[in-house]
Amino acid sequence: MDFDNIANDLEKIGKEMYDLMTELYPICRSITGDGVRKTDKILSNHIPLEIHEVPTGTNVFDWIIPKEWNIKDAYIIDPDGEKIIDFKKSNLHVMNYSVPINTKMTLDELKPHMYTIPEKPDVIPYRISYYKENWGFCLSHNQFLNLKEGEYEVVIDSTLKDGSLTYAECFLPGETDDEILISCYTCHPSLCNDNLSGVVLSTFLAKTISKINLRRYSYRFLFVPETIGAITWLSQNESKLSNINHGLVATCVGDPGCLTYKKSRNGHLNIDRAVTNVLKHCGDDYKIIDYFPPGSDERQYGSPGVNLPVGSLMRTPYSEFQEYHTSADDLDFVKSKHLADSFSKYMKTFYILENNRSFINLQPKGEPEYNHYGRRSYQAF
Amino acid sequence: MDFDNIANDLEKIGKEMYDLMTELYPICRSITGDGVRKTDKILSNHIPLEIHEVPTGTNVFDWIIPKEWNIKDAYIIDPDGEKIIDFKKSNLHVMNYSVPINTKMTLDELKPHMYTIPEKPDVIPYRISYYKENWGFCLSHNQFLNLKEGEYEVVIDSTLKDGSLTYAECFLPGETDDEILISCYTCHPSLCNDNLSGVVLSTFLAKTISKINLRRYSYRFLFVPETIGAITWLSQNESKLSNINHGLVATCVGDPGCLTYKKSRNGHLNIDRAVTNVLKHCGDDYKIIDYFPPGSDERQYGSPGVNLPVGSLMRTPYSEFQEYHTSADDLDFVKSKHLADSFSKYMKTFYILENNRSFINLQPKGEPEYNHYGRRSYQAF
Amino acid sequence: MDFDNIANDLEKIGKEMYDLMTELYPICRSITGDGVRKTDKILSNHIPLEIHEVPTGTNVFDWIIPKEWNIKDAYIIDPDGEKIIDFKKSNLHVMNYSVPINTKMTLDELKPHMYTIPEKPDVIPYRISYYKENWGFCLSHNQFLNLKEGEYEVVIDSTLKDGSLTYAECFLPGETDDEILISCYTCHPSLCNDNLSGVVLSTFLAKTISKINLRRYSYRFLFVPETIGAITWLSQNESKLSNINHGLVATCVGDPGCLTYKKSRNGHLNIDRAVTNVLKHCGDDYKIIDYFPPGSDERQYGSPGVNLPVGSLMRTPYSEFQEYHTSADDLDFVKSKHLADSFSKYMKTFYILENNRSFINLQPKGEPEYNHYGRRSYQAF
Repeated sequence: MDFDNIANDLEKIGKEMYDLMTELYPICRSITGDGVRKTDKILSNHIPLEIHEVPTGTNVFDWIIPKEWNIKDAYIIDPDGEKIIDFKKSNLHVMNYSVPINTKMTLDELKPHMYTIPEKPDVIPYRISYYKENWGFCLSHNQFLNLKEGEYEVVIDSTLKDGSLTYAECFLPGETDDEILISCYTCHPSLCNDNLSGVVLSTFLAKTISKINLRRYSYRFLFVPETIGAITWLSQNESKLSNINHGLVATCVGDPGCLTYKKSRNGHLNIDRAVTNVLKHCGDDYKIIDYFPPGSDERQYGSPGVNLPVGSLMRTPYSEFQEYHTSADDLDFVKSKHLADSFSKYMKTFYILENNRSFINLQPKGEPEYNHYGRRSYQAF
Repeated sequence: MDFDNIANDLEKIGKEMYDLMTELYPICRSITGDGVRKTDKILSNHIPLEIHEVPTGTNVFDWIIPKEWNIKDAYIIDPDGEKIIDFKKSNLHVMNYSVPINTKMTLDELKPHMYTIPEKPDVIPYRISYYKENWGFCLSHNQFLNLKEGEYEVVIDSTLKDGSLTYAECFLPGETDDEILISCYTCHPSLCNDNLSGVVLSTFLAKTISKINLRRYSYRFLFVPETIGAITWLSQNESKLSNINHGLVATCVGDPGCLTYKKSRNGHLNIDRAVTNVLKHCGDDYKIIDYFPPGSDERQYGSPGVNLPVGSLMRTPYSEFQEYHTSADDLDFVKSKHLADSFSKYMKTFYILENNRSFINLQPKGEPEYNHYGRRSYQAF
Repeated sequence: MDFDNIANDLEKIGKEMYDLMTELYPICRSITGDGVRKTDKILSNHIPLEIHEVPTGTNVFDWIIPKEWNIKDAYIIDPDGEKIIDFKKSNLHVMNYSVPINTKMTLDELKPHMYTIPEKPDVIPYRISYYKENWGFCLSHNQFLNLKEGEYEVVIDSTLKDGSLTYAECFLPGETDDEILISCYTCHPSLCNDNLSGVVLSTFLAKTISKINLRRYSYRFLFVPETIGAITWLSQNESKLSNINHGLVATCVGDPGCLTYKKSRNGHLNIDRAVTNVLKHCGDDYKIIDYFPPGSDERQYGSPGVNLPVGSLMRTPYSEFQEYHTSADDLDFVKSKHLADSFSKYMKTFYILENNRSFINLQPKGEPEYNHYGRRSYQAF
């Protein structure tokens, strides 16, 4: 099989990506800890993965690998003895990176540690506190409004101690050392579009490409915790960066919105031209937007001192869909057909990049003698 | 005499060019053989010529010098014993580079070797078969339609064997090593506009310039078989190419059409600006067209690996006049006054190039002290 | 005091500049001689000045330092014995650089040596003859018309002999070797706007800047005879030129007109942008004009072989005000408030140049870890 005759059964692939997402959904991930390791283990059933562990305290550019966080359980029992918050029902209930706690306190003492979204009263928000030691619970605003006065039992059975940050890498060598980079992030807990969708898409892209014999490019798939993980990989792989010819950050690729391409910082690179070409000719709606520094890991890959040719191909951008960073970004919000459509657009982009070549005239001095080449006979004037 | 006070008697020069063309017209030329040698011999009565012979089998860029072709006679005798085709009456009757033959055959056997132009039934076409061994006769379509059934005697008394390709060069050194190149081709048999007109124009340009004492540029006139001859010269003179500052291919300069300038491949060089200036201010109609790869030897001079600044100044371009490559391109089609007009435009171009200079400020530091230079007194503010 | 908190009392500075101008006004200056020396002596009461003497005959670029000119007295006594022209009343009466004369002659013999402006019949013109030995008197056209026939006694008690050209320089070192150059000319006799105004402005700019402790740039103030003096300084200081980052020629800065900026020859340099910014935001009328080769010493600083980034910030340009180069360019024409306004615009320009800096990203690889810098906490997507 080569890039010219891939015949993918998109419906089947969409279904397989969705099934994998369902399997990954319950795991409580963070930027460090066993959640990422379990995730990588499941992915390695589909593709060859090289797992890296980077110890707490390691310097990575301007950053330092933080302590490793793990959590077994967390709950709140109300004055009536009822378990009103239960980590086992949704890992979003605990603010990610919460330090351990096991105590009793009044509602007034507890409230400053409770996070809700008054404008979206039915959903649990997703909150983190990676670099400042803190603890907290997230819950729906409706539940919050109904809490009664009295003494609460508050338990977070977590650990925060020296350990390591885990990331995984799938490298598929091609005919040349020139690379296409696909990066997704594995640090978000039970959230589907942001970004289990990117994780399962990357996995099935890697799985498909590994079966293509004739590929000019080498392909590198990164499964890293967002921000700190991308920075870690860049910091530890500077000698490889010059090989990266094109790249995409895969995020938010399973929602019903149309495709959105966020250009590379430069904006006029071959990856920009390739994706634009795919979107222009796909027959579907699409948006193309300029690079802006905030966002996902394209901010790391495109930072001035790294300057990699990396854009981001998504559906509805993070923060533009209502379900973003809430419990509503669940298995109902993402659909297999959208995952399959994103898969198709990524593969078409690779196809264009694989076939984008220039030819060098080996007989530039005078007219070629076409009889050598069997093309046409001599034409006199 | 210098370029500033040339006073050419254009009518006289036009007449002399026409007379020389009349002398050259009957000779059967090809890309090799005695026709070119006889032509060069006649030209050397007018200008100093250095003759070069390049042996069969010599590699020239992507090409190989072919066997040398010569012909003494050729004819066809019809079933009634009548000589219906006679090389001695017109050398266009024989397909150029025809291998020898001396046999009898039926009309049906002969027909595949006969060439006519049904849309122009009165003229004999000009046909060649340089790089594929073949034989053939050219005749008017009206004659072809009246051929009767029966046995024909078919004779071509030609030779095709190891020999050499002949080209001639007239180099007129100037004050500097910077050169202006004029190239024309000497391989076409009895055809006047294409390109005896270019041959006689080049000859009289060289003759005139040789009498000009003060010339900044050196002038190089090439009389080469088209395509293979230009490639041969380029291949054997690569060390001289950097001297060539400007160049023109002289072809189709005797017909009644207006002047046409085909730009250099670059299109913005000094030769392009000089010719454009002459045409804009001449008061006559003219056309300026972009470079295109097919054409005459500007395709060799302008090929990417050679990249010389060479355009082509002609009247009606080859293939745009009805008489092109037929027996109608004869001594009636070309007129001395058109030759003279082309001569004038070429000389004006040389005049502009000779006088196109820049001056360097030798006192760039501070204001010059004009009293030294007698121009004006000191002006204070 | 630093550039960020200069609080100049403009009214006081305007008055002081005007007083200094009043003191300098009576001195008869020229491109050489004691007038320049006396002027520099007075200036050195205000700022530290290094005085240079360059001997007659010294080569400076295309020029040669001329003989030194000095004058004690000059007058004309008419046929009635009346002293009708008296150098002691106005040094403009004598053509600058007049050779000595002491003789009697008729009015007809005298007239070719008399200079007036018929269109401005009340004023004495300013005339020079630096590089051609000559003598002459300047007077109002009305006086000229009333001269009576008869014998005139004509005396010019001047000397023209080997000596030297005098120029002065005030250099104020800053944190860096990068320099801002301010140049004015000290060769004009009793003329206020052109250019005692530039002399007193430069003096008070230097005086003010010398009190500013924190200055990034070094400042160099030149007090040179126009043209020959600027050329002399350039010729003798070529090794210092690469330090000059920005420069202005200070001339005609005391008249009532609005500010006029004549751009550097390049026109797009930082000095052009800085002055333009000051003028755009000053709230007053202003003009910005392109560089043109004639003018004051920006023609020397901006000459192609020197190519310094020097513009000229003036009020009404020389030759655009009626009083130019006449006795009407006097202490009434220039006002202290205009001098003060010019002072303010120059200082604002220096302020912009001092603060025009670029910052280098010291953490270009990946996103900075903002917690280090106390700006904001980690933002995840």
